[in-house]
Amino acid sequence: MMINRLTSEERASELADLRGWQAVAGRDAIQRHFRFADFNEAFGFMARVAIKAQEMNHHPEWFNVYNRVEITLSTHEADGLTSRDIELARFIDSIAPGPLSA
Amino acid sequence: MMINRLTSEERASELADLRGWQAVAGRDAIQRHFRFADFNEAFGFMARVAIKAQEMNHHPEWFNVYNRVEITLSTHEADGLTSRDIELARFIDSIAPGPLSA
Repeated sequence: MMINRLTSEERASELADLRGWQAVAGRDAIQRHFRFADFNEAFGFMARVAIKAQEMNHHPEWFNVYNRVEITLSTHEADGLTSRDIELARFIDSIAPGPLSA
Repeated sequence: MMINRLTSEERASELADLRGWQAVAGRDAIQRHFRFADFNEAFGFMARVAIKAQEMNHHPEWFNVYNRVEITLSTHEADGLTSRDIELARFIDSIAPGPLSA
């Protein structure tokens, strides 16, 4: 399926509705950092994101060490940010911890 | 438990027995890159490593995007490579795919 990059208006509007996602320097992508109580909680979160990503056939770039997870979203086929990234970011926000995230 | 960094002799000898692990520039750490058939296989591998890591209470630093996984091992408490990293690397080697890895 062909998918188009978000326009700058769409991008600004969608980003305003997300929690804590930042533009990545030098790339049309967004990133959010998460901090959990421990590795068990961090990897449990990753497993939930992985299942959703597989269901969407849209996968994150992510880094983990112990209780920290950094997720970058961008759409390879479109070489930039698309509605799929926003959909996955919304899901991630919906299962992310509130006060501990940062 | 106090744990000591490997001596350079131990390090060289242990590394020679591992498959495809490289020293990380500027850090006393080792890294290996893996490539799988798809995300399902990559994340399944990560889940197996995660369970082992939790059992050992020794966790990797790792990055994943789609079918690629990059794992860095080092022991935070020792500020360098220890026998725990070697033990985890051996386990990872034991479950890593042969021909596709790189």
